[in-house]
Amino acid sequence: MRSHTRYLTMNVPARMDFVNITAEVHEAVRESGVREGLCLVNAMHITASVFINDDEPGLHEDYKRWLEQLAPFDASPQCYRHNRTGEDNADAHHKRQVMGREVVVAITAGRLDLGPWEQVLYGEFDGRRAKRVLIKIIGE
Amino acid sequence: MRSHTRYLTMNVPARMDFVNITAEVHEAVRESGVREGLCLVNAMHITASVFINDDEPGLHEDYKRWLEQLAPFDASPQCYRHNRTGEDNADAHHKRQVMGREVVVAITAGRLDLGPWEQVLYGEFDGRRAKRVLIKIIGE
Amino acid sequence: MRSHTRYLTMNVPARMDFVNITAEVHEAVRESGVREGLCLVNAMHITASVFINDDEPGLHEDYKRWLEQLAPFDASPQCYRHNRTGEDNADAHHKRQVMGREVVVAITAGRLDLGPWEQVLYGEFDGRRAKRVLIKIIGE
Repeated sequence: MRSHTRYLTMNVPARMDFVNITAEVHEAVRESGVREGLCLVNAMHITASVFINDDEPGLHEDYKRWLEQLAPFDASPQCYRHNRTGEDNADAHHKRQVMGREVVVAITAGRLDLGPWEQVLYGEFDGRRAKRVLIKIIGE
Repeated sequence: MRSHTRYLTMNVPARMDFVNITAEVHEAVRESGVREGLCLVNAMHITASVFINDDEPGLHEDYKRWLEQLAPFDASPQCYRHNRTGEDNADAHHKRQVMGREVVVAITAGRLDLGPWEQVLYGEFDGRRAKRVLIKIIGE
Repeated sequence: MRSHTRYLTMNVPARMDFVNITAEVHEAVRESGVREGLCLVNAMHITASVFINDDEPGLHEDYKRWLEQLAPFDASPQCYRHNRTGEDNADAHHKRQVMGREVVVAITAGRLDLGPWEQVLYGEFDGRRAKRVLIKIIGE
């Protein structure tokens, strides 16, 4: 069995935004030499997501508006109890649950086995600081 | 290490519906010969889901109503910016995020290690055309 | 390839609550002897979740209020069709979809490769009875 580990550092200038990391995941698969296996990609921070969807700017705007409706930003300690700890990012912990922490992608014949429109996206919900993403590959 | 890959083609006649694919996943595990390992099942399209829950028609009706409340179908370019691209399925990209892209199931003693009520379901949110599901098994 | 399987039994006295199971997952990884691999942790019941987020009581209260807004408890058969089957837990099947069924965590150099705040949490949405969680580890 082979394994390969790679960490990406994300530094998103906006509070909420989406970044396409598909190329980095493809590169990690090439580095690994794995022909058949699984590739895990996960956010290592709990106010960020890794998910698979379309890299289309209009859709990303839709997601932002929708997540803001589902879990609005509110720094006051009245709205979210988590913000009584001195944090202001309770909303980001909720947004991340909707979008998910991780994806697992098959590797077949040495390549990520993705559908035609599948793109691996990093979702930032409390940005303006460095955060890490983990890519872990196992297989043969 | 053994690996096994299988693709299912789904063709759901409704725009939104749920299909039980547990039997197909069991069959793929049998074909693989894997006794101990992991089985990934994922939608290869970004307006569909694979998830695990109950195969109960009333619950599926509840899910449909609930998802329609959370992310209503609206083909107009006013409601969703994604639909300015000529698409009408922005809502489906949102519904899929709530229900998820994939499941990973343990294989123990040659069988899917599922709880008593766990069923693997395909969730279609923009149907009436062929879409693929990937089953990837690795283990020994 | 090595593999290791462990089952936890959860018995949450409240209908909805969150329990930190990170220590149990660490212990399973130690037992496995795996140095490089993947660790799947999933709820085996469809009204419960395993997810990764902060073990902060205020945040857990926020999640409970939020999930109750997104999918309110209502035992009547009028609100949820699933409850026409004699069940009263349709809301729990919805809450579980928002929070997810499972997490997959990398194992690197013999340890769970978690970010600084990542805690593995069990989410119960229809408690007051025994339920199982599965930990499956594969690697080398």
